Amino acid sequence: MSVDAPHVAVVGGGMADADACAVAEAVGRELARRGAVVVCGGLGGVMEAACRGAKDQGGLTIGILPGEDRGEANAFVDVAVPTGMGEARNALVVRAADVVIAVGGEFGTLSEIALALRTGRSVVGLGTWELSRPGRQEDPIVRARRPEDAVDAALALAAAT
Amino acid sequence: MSVDAPHVAVVGGGMADADACAVAEAVGRELARRGAVVVCGGLGGVMEAACRGAKDQGGLTIGILPGEDRGEANAFVDVAVPTGMGEARNALVVRAADVVIAVGGEFGTLSEIALALRTGRSVVGLGTWELSRPGRQEDPIVRARRPEDAVDAALALAAAT
Amino acid sequence: MSVDAPHVAVVGGGMADADACAVAEAVGRELARRGAVVVCGGLGGVMEAACRGAKDQGGLTIGILPGEDRGEANAFVDVAVPTGMGEARNALVVRAADVVIAVGGEFGTLSEIALALRTGRSVVGLGTWELSRPGRQEDPIVRARRPEDAVDAALALAAAT
Amino acid sequence: MSVDAPHVAVVGGGMADADACAVAEAVGRELARRGAVVVCGGLGGVMEAACRGAKDQGGLTIGILPGEDRGEANAFVDVAVPTGMGEARNALVVRAADVVIAVGGEFGTLSEIALALRTGRSVVGLGTWELSRPGRQEDPIVRARRPEDAVDAALALAAAT
Repeated sequence: MSVDAPHVAVVGGGMADADACAVAEAVGRELARRGAVVVCGGLGGVMEAACRGAKDQGGLTIGILPGEDRGEANAFVDVAVPTGMGEARNALVVRAADVVIAVGGEFGTLSEIALALRTGRSVVGLGTWELSRPGRQEDPIVRARRPEDAVDAALALAAAT
Repeated sequence: MSVDAPHVAVVGGGMADADACAVAEAVGRELARRGAVVVCGGLGGVMEAACRGAKDQGGLTIGILPGEDRGEANAFVDVAVPTGMGEARNALVVRAADVVIAVGGEFGTLSEIALALRTGRSVVGLGTWELSRPGRQEDPIVRARRPEDAVDAALALAAAT
Repeated sequence: MSVDAPHVAVVGGGMADADACAVAEAVGRELARRGAVVVCGGLGGVMEAACRGAKDQGGLTIGILPGEDRGEANAFVDVAVPTGMGEARNALVVRAADVVIAVGGEFGTLSEIALALRTGRSVVGLGTWELSRPGRQEDPIVRARRPEDAVDAALALAAAT
Repeated sequence: MSVDAPHVAVVGGGMADADACAVAEAVGRELARRGAVVVCGGLGGVMEAACRGAKDQGGLTIGILPGEDRGEANAFVDVAVPTGMGEARNALVVRAADVVIAVGGEFGTLSEIALALRTGRSVVGLGTWELSRPGRQEDPIVRARRPEDAVDAALALAAAT
């Protein structure tokens, strides 16, 4: 039952540079190799790269789309869920996962990081947002340097919840 | 790619009698046998029976849940999407499908029938709601008598869209 | 505090004939006269007519819109909430109200009737859908003939919840 | 028509300290004094303080709630919209506004800041999150020191959109 496998959301820019995509693909590949399901927003850039990596290892990929058309999913999404909710679907990407790995990313990614932290999910970051607030020092994001380390950390955190 | 396969939502009561469940299971089995993906609300009754039938034939099942916990999915759901949106998730069940088969059902099912028709999706009914309005005679639901006939009709309608 | 006043959703077609609009306007007028807040989907037809009637009596009107732009609200909406959720917003129209009055209507209206009944809200109907199911005889909708009667029934039902 | 007035979302912690609440109340008061509608998440802390300030000046307040019950709104909300969508309602708070003022805040507030920036809305910050990313220097938030300055900036930004 894939429902019982760890579900890891890989979030990042829909238009990302080659470096971020290479990182995301390695994350997706490693997640699938270790039996995790890849959840994402279903579009291009980091989302597509993570799915491509996962499919390379025979993994399962879920894309939760902003629009109403299943066909807008990237070619490496196995299960596409068109929400028709626009950016409000970011909350659903997070809810579908046990833990989140953020690769780079813009404001949409930042909203997913924030919604994950708000709902008690851990976030592992690879070159993503730095957050701070007056009077608060600790970094709420678990930082990783390499894709494999990010997956290690994410799966350990998922197992602990 | 399962995204390219026809996606058929099977909707019906979360607490359904044995007859409705037997019909839903036969619908799920026939859908999977013919290569369609079964989409549902992910809970018990007709939803669970349809998923059980589909898994019996090695099909793929998607459950779009009202709550926030993937674990509330029935045991035959492959991919669970917890929306945390309550009954508002009924619109997402419909959006994830090309066509809807309604088996019996209560008011939640009626809302899915209505949302499907509202968004241009055909609905095939097996012992489900009868709808009429002052000054409007035609039945908006395609009626079927047997599960196989419902699947025949649904897949023909999905192919035509 | 308007939050404490009864909230009544008036649902019906976005493109409705003159008769339905006249009925909806009378419903809105009577609701406002009796201190109720009018909730609706914020667009034209029955929604606009109900709001126009309510404003004619100095009432408060809330429009919960399918799109992302507050400006798509009809001219008689005081408070517009653009959801960007398309037809999934129908669930929010219902949730914002204590009771629903349905005037005529198409499939979108039917979905609102169904979602109201699903979530335990009473529905009062004026020339709207007839619902029946094999093995179930009772009409789940409280039928009214005149706008004033519909408002009477709706406010009595809202007070009883 | 209040729909035509500027709509400003005031976002911040549901449990906030006295300083943040005093700031939020001054923001709400100034917004109402200048004819703007206050939009918020409808609960306590910063949300309640902003509404209290606005009502002190006879302003209009809208609370878009995470739960299903209108009654969970704070006592200074005029129009409560219970979404039943949990944290996914943060996207709706943002959509209902032309511009956002963030006062302090936790992760939920961060998600609202991010969703605002993602959808092209300006964010004015009072003692709120600092955001940075590798390779990106500019601060996406317009910083203000005093409530009146924040309202000045927000209304100027709203007028420019």
